[in-house]
Amino acid sequence: MTRPGQRERAARFLELHRGPRILLLPNAWDAASARLFEEEGFPAIGTTSAGVAYSLGFPDGQQAPFPEMVAAIERIARAVQVSVTADIESGFGESAEEVGENVRAVLEAGAVGVNLEDGREGEDSLIPISLHSEKIRSAREAALAAGFALVVNARTDVFLDAIGDPTTRFDEAVARANAYRHAGADCLFVPGVTEAATIERLVRAIDGPLNVLAAAATPPISELERLGVARVSLGSGPMRATLALLRRIARELMDGGTYATLTEGTIPYAETNRLFART
Amino acid sequence: MTRPGQRERAARFLELHRGPRILLLPNAWDAASARLFEEEGFPAIGTTSAGVAYSLGFPDGQQAPFPEMVAAIERIARAVQVSVTADIESGFGESAEEVGENVRAVLEAGAVGVNLEDGREGEDSLIPISLHSEKIRSAREAALAAGFALVVNARTDVFLDAIGDPTTRFDEAVARANAYRHAGADCLFVPGVTEAATIERLVRAIDGPLNVLAAAATPPISELERLGVARVSLGSGPMRATLALLRRIARELMDGGTYATLTEGTIPYAETNRLFART
Repeated sequence: MTRPGQRERAARFLELHRGPRILLLPNAWDAASARLFEEEGFPAIGTTSAGVAYSLGFPDGQQAPFPEMVAAIERIARAVQVSVTADIESGFGESAEEVGENVRAVLEAGAVGVNLEDGREGEDSLIPISLHSEKIRSAREAALAAGFALVVNARTDVFLDAIGDPTTRFDEAVARANAYRHAGADCLFVPGVTEAATIERLVRAIDGPLNVLAAAATPPISELERLGVARVSLGSGPMRATLALLRRIARELMDGGTYATLTEGTIPYAETNRLFART
Repeated sequence: MTRPGQRERAARFLELHRGPRILLLPNAWDAASARLFEEEGFPAIGTTSAGVAYSLGFPDGQQAPFPEMVAAIERIARAVQVSVTADIESGFGESAEEVGENVRAVLEAGAVGVNLEDGREGEDSLIPISLHSEKIRSAREAALAAGFALVVNARTDVFLDAIGDPTTRFDEAVARANAYRHAGADCLFVPGVTEAATIERLVRAIDGPLNVLAAAATPPISELERLGVARVSLGSGPMRATLALLRRIARELMDGGTYATLTEGTIPYAETNRLFART
């Protein structure tokens, strides 16, 4: 059981990891942000678990009820024609079986890829390599059994969560990424690394396409491409940037009683409506 | 059947229309924007029908399925402690009975107020005064029957939709506002007016609290307060401002491959997470 065009979108999405050009993947949290990114020409869209959680009223870290997260992913997938990959943290389940079931729900919602991370919110340790590998295998098998194609992006949070002694992190991240690749991951995501030299070493040591997260200190896209990075994503950055803008709008209104931040450079109502018109 | 504190929130919200200070009401489209506005100190929050529709993937104008709009209102209401009033356009129903049913659903979702407009998307005429007055009465009766308190904000789109000869608009808007007041509206909303002189005349001619919409040309809040305006709201302005920011972020990324618009002045991840932590 697949949605119309879902298999083609999955194949196209996987292909974007193998091209000569880096895949620049923006992360959406609702249908509006997804549609805006699509209109700007991005060939695929990821979701941000943090952004989706915030827009539902929850903190990040698998705090939002999973059915609400799936419904949000479905609203995003139905709003765009491009491929959508879903950030579902560590799979919203302790066991590989639960994660398989959840991946199936996300694919039925219209996504053609998933992120699965080995970090544990608020803890100083990661999910064991063996269990996370099982989750990846389970995700792939669930998709296969349901007749869906699926791009699995396996994430290790060694750097992001600053796990263990700093001198051990590179080797640990590589060991994890390669184990996840062996378990069937299509792409390996190592957020929390911004140094060009380290990124270049990761590209060489990891036996598959590398995904990095763009932050203020990250080298520009052209340099990431030169270093051999396959995919760069934005995480919750765009969502947090919009909240920061809302805060500036609110403070100008509350403190000065004026509307410059609200109105300058905005998109007019009629133009915005057209962005969401269904043909 | 009321939610805990809902009656008190309704009373407090109505009181905010009667104070010496103008009510500055920001409009949210999801739990995140609502929570941000609450954190910045606004005493009440409105929803924006356009913003909610966009975030669900639809254009404005009663195009989003009503149950999805109600679910979005519920997510907003559960995310904040302050009063929430819901913009439900012309009530998502042709008849007064349908509108009464829909108002009941919105109140059960946790809102303590509604906007009901007489404009008709894409048409050059307004809903007849008699029918719109019936809708207002029906909304009030539905709330009463369900045991809910309710603040009805009746909106006339004479100026916003540029209805009829310009010289007739002031009198038409006043006639409509006063009819809606007579039908039970607590506040009268006349969007599309930015001239101080016209706003002042509306305050004098309308027999109830006046709500105006903030746009680039609107006098600052202090002047609106001096003119006697009771409530100023932002409509879809904040939502559209965030889409414009996303467009700037996207274009910097696509054209220059850099992240300044994405990262400068943003709210860090940990701080954002705390904003949504549940105590």
